[in-house]
Formats: sequence, structure tokens, C-alpha cells
Amino acid sequence: MTEDAFLRDLFPRLGTMPPEIVIPPGDDCAAICVAPGRLLLLATDQVIGDRHYRRRGPDAAAPEQVGRKLLARNLSDIAAMGGRPLYALVTAALGPDEDEAWLRRFFDGLLALAREWQTLVIGGDLARTPADLVTTLTIVGEVAEDRVCRRSGARPGNELFATGRFGSAFESGHHLAFTPRLREAQWLAEQGAVTAMIDVSDGLLLDARRLCAASGVSLRLEVAAVPLRTPQTTREKGLADGEDYELLIALEAPAAARIAAAWPFADVPFTRIGLFTDDARHDVLDAAGRRLSLRSGDGYDHFAAGAGHA
Amino acid sequence: MTEDAFLRDLFPRLGTMPPEIVIPPGDDCAAICVAPGRLLLLATDQVIGDRHYRRRGPDAAAPEQVGRKLLARNLSDIAAMGGRPLYALVTAALGPDEDEAWLRRFFDGLLALAREWQTLVIGGDLARTPADLVTTLTIVGEVAEDRVCRRSGARPGNELFATGRFGSAFESGHHLAFTPRLREAQWLAEQGAVTAMIDVSDGLLLDARRLCAASGVSLRLEVAAVPLRTPQTTREKGLADGEDYELLIALEAPAAARIAAAWPFADVPFTRIGLFTDDARHDVLDAAGRRLSLRSGDGYDHFAAGAGHA
Repeated sequence: MTEDAFLRDLFPRLGTMPPEIVIPPGDDCAAICVAPGRLLLLATDQVIGDRHYRRRGPDAAAPEQVGRKLLARNLSDIAAMGGRPLYALVTAALGPDEDEAWLRRFFDGLLALAREWQTLVIGGDLARTPADLVTTLTIVGEVAEDRVCRRSGARPGNELFATGRFGSAFESGHHLAFTPRLREAQWLAEQGAVTAMIDVSDGLLLDARRLCAASGVSLRLEVAAVPLRTPQTTREKGLADGEDYELLIALEAPAAARIAAAWPFADVPFTRIGLFTDDARHDVLDAAGRRLSLRSGDGYDHFAAGAGHA
Repeated sequence: MTEDAFLRDLFPRLGTMPPEIVIPPGDDCAAICVAPGRLLLLATDQVIGDRHYRRRGPDAAAPEQVGRKLLARNLSDIAAMGGRPLYALVTAALGPDEDEAWLRRFFDGLLALAREWQTLVIGGDLARTPADLVTTLTIVGEVAEDRVCRRSGARPGNELFATGRFGSAFESGHHLAFTPRLREAQWLAEQGAVTAMIDVSDGLLLDARRLCAASGVSLRLEVAAVPLRTPQTTREKGLADGEDYELLIALEAPAAARIAAAWPFADVPFTRIGLFTDDARHDVLDAAGRRLSLRSGDGYDHFAAGAGHA
């Protein structure tokens, strides 16, 4: 069973969400109205040894990289809402391989990135496991209610843009070194023409499908236009690999060309890669209108049994 | 190294806390001012297989009990501040022993307790580990700024009270079945005479020491007055065992007797167990004024290497 399928069953059991929960579970963050026009954003994510990074051997990640990645993953969720990060709570369950020196270096990496994005660690919990290493972080951010970007707002005729490049995140080391797209997302949210946004953590095709499902639209993806990370990255890997931590952005068509022309971040590609349609399948389609599917499966699911990069 | 010692080193590295962080890391929850007079409370805690409960064998906890315990631990942190819970974010990293049926039952237990305390699950993340089971929960609560209870307010002459009974939490099953003291804490906070409060999760003596250190006072503990959980519970175990999830409350002396007489919860003992003094050791003392120490060590630390009940 995939994480998405489990969550589809779970969400109806969570009960009725009161009006202050402006964005309920199912988006990159939940959003709570705490003052008129001001939303708090909340999300949580994990980094697990030998799932999200290699714990041992020549390709083992340094503890600083693990701490950095844990925060960066969560900052990417804040970015996807057009938000600004504020606070973090951190848990670490260390295995027999990790000692206090490891944990200190883990916090070195986490706190260096936290300073960069003005994010304060305000709580946490430390414990030990029999064998594994599991760290989690809960991020709290904020966004103006009239600027928040959801998954669910894409409309037929909107154009799909993407930041950055896709695929080969593990082979290239991108999965440990990526920059969360906060700066780009905040700029985009200010342009006033974003109808939907999502961060790509589980593969472009799978996260594009999630955006389509949430918005009730289909997407004609221009596969040949998707920027690939390395010369060795195949089209297949560009759509299927996880850990890109780039953004998919649905833009109103009249404003899209203006926004693309005004894009101020020369170091980050901003590329038109598709067009939303009213096709009733609410799915990602190829140029011929067929459901796009990949030989290797449709993306990366950290929950499906047996999944794991490392 | 203990968790406390690691955190003493870590806290100065977290940076300067801005004025809206009314209670910084180091208490049961952090508190953030989100509107005049209104604090949001935030805390996070873990439940780990074969650390916080037995995962296999005849004493194995049911998945419902694991989910219930995860939320209950966090509710106890909200109780310690005099607060009311609002929202929760949940992560689960399942090992090879746990399948989707396990996870569904885990949420059955968690959501049943959540309904009881009007707490909404608004986010989470699911993943898999190579071997272990690690679940975490971040709790969000609220409290009026003029009602919030900290660890740091106990003064010489204040009296120490405790809810409930202590020791033998594992043997008796209390560690899976305890009721978080939210009702009692909210009533106490309304009485206006609480100077400090803490929840006892790592043993009465260790958590009483934390309250003394935070408040800059010492405590004459009346060991014989501490209510014990079972007829088999020794005085030593009453002070040293973890997982009580009861409250220690410092009360202003003039009001203490009135509050004890008015205590409305007939099913929960409310017992005077000590007196705070200005002794400069900022420690827990016995009737003769000696530092109280136990043959078995001073309490339970989930982080110190090798620790684990199960």
C-alpha cells in the first residue's frame, strides 16, 4: 500500500476540521488562522538512516549533512506554500552507531542551515533505538492568507512551470546538498498569479499527479522540456527519481510569460513544462493525450514496503 | 552523557530567542505569543519499540496502546503548562514487524484519545526503517499568558504537591494506560497560586531536581508522604521509576491548604510531599538536609547510552 492510499483512508477519520484550519491535512503544510489574514504553517518530515541516506560505507553521509537535510526537507514544504519558516522542533533516535559526537555534528549542520533561513529550534526530544537512526523535524512557518499557495488551485489553461533540474538526486549528491526554494517561492507568491504549488520530493511525475488530483484537472506534460540534472540523467529518471526538492508551479496563462521574463534568479532554471486541461482523468498525460507511465513505476514512495534508496 | 547534559551544551547554540518566544526551550513546552495574552504551546516526544514498550513476546503492547501512549505523553506536556491541547502532527517509521494493519490500529488508539481531549491530527509523515519502530508526535496547545505554568517559578516557602501515585509504572501497565492530567492541571492553573509545575516522566526525583534547578531553589522532599502505585512498590521505586506522567506542583503556602481542601477530583490523589527552601544547592534534600540519592541512580534517562525499560 502506498502512503497516499493509506492517507486517503485515514483523512476521513480525523474528524471535522474547524474553520480556523484553513488548509487541512493533505497539502505540503497544514495552515491555521491565528490572527486575521495571518496563517501559521505546520508540517513534519523524517530522515531515516539507510532510507534517506547511506549510514555506513564509503558513500556514508556526514552527520552535518543528515542534520542539514532534515531541516532542508521541511523548509521545502514551507516553500511550497509560499511561506516563511519560523520555528523547528527536532527529535533524534540514535542507534548504536551514533554517539554524542555524531549528534553534536548533526546539530552543527542543522543549525547552520537554520541560521541561514532565520529558523529557530524551540524544542525537541532525544532517545535511543536498538538499531536504527530516525530523526524528525516539525516546522512552523507563516504566510499571509492572501498569498498562500495550495495544491488544489490549478485550473484548465494554467501553465506548469518548474524550478531547477530533475533526476539523479542520489548519484549526484543533490539529495544532501539541495537548497530549499524558499526565496523563489516567496517571489512567486508575490506575483499574484500562482494558482497551485507543490514541492517535488517523490519524483516529478508522482508529485505532478498529486497536484492534478488535488486540483481536479489534468496536465499535458512536455516531457522533452523537463530540465535534467546531469548529462547522464535519462528522461525516465528525470520524471521518476525522488529527492529533487524543486517546485512545480501552476500559473495563470496571461501572467506566465511576464513572470518567466521577470524571473530574477539567474542561478535557478525556471522552465515551462506543461499545460493544464479539463481532461476528466485528473492525471498526467503525454503529448498524445495518453496517461503518462514509466517502466520503473510512477515515482518514489518512502512508505511502500521495501522502498529505500540506500 | 545524559539528555540534560547534552541540552545544556546545545541551548546556547540555538541563538537569541525573540520576544514572542515567551518560554524558550527547556520547559515541558515552548510558548509563543501569537496574539495579546494568548500563547501557543509546542512540544514533541517519541515512542520507540523496545524502549518505551515491548514490541514482541507475551508482554507486547497492542498497536492501539502504542498510539494512545504517543499522544498521552505529549498531552502530559501540555498539562504541565496548564494548557489545552489543539493539534497534533504524527510521524511513524515502521519496521519489518509492522504492516498497514498495525498502523491502522495504532491510529485507532491515537485518534480515540484525541477525540477525548478535542485534539485534531493536522499533519504527519509515514516511512519505513530497516529494523526499528519509531513514532513521534508534535503537540500544539494554547494557554492564557496569565495562566501559564513554568518549571522556573518555585520560591522558598512554597509547598510541593503531587497528583496521583508513583513507581512501578511498567509492571502495573500504567505506562500504557495513564490518563494525562489535563483536567487537573487546568483546574490548578485557574486557582492562581501555582508558581511552578512539571510532569513526571523520568522519575519523581529526577524531575523534581529539574524543577529545583530551573527555579533556583531546593526542595525538602517528604519521602514517606509520596503515594506509591502498588503494594509492591518500594519507596526507592516510587522516586526512581519513570513513566508516571503525574504532575509536581509548587503552590504558594497561604493558598495551598485551601486548594488541597477544594480539590474536586476524588479519583486522583493530591498530596503534599515537600517544602521549597533557599538552600543554595538547588537540589532535592531529605529530612536531614542531605542531598537525596538512590541506590539505583537518580531517575530514568531515555537518552543515556544503553537505557531502556524493555
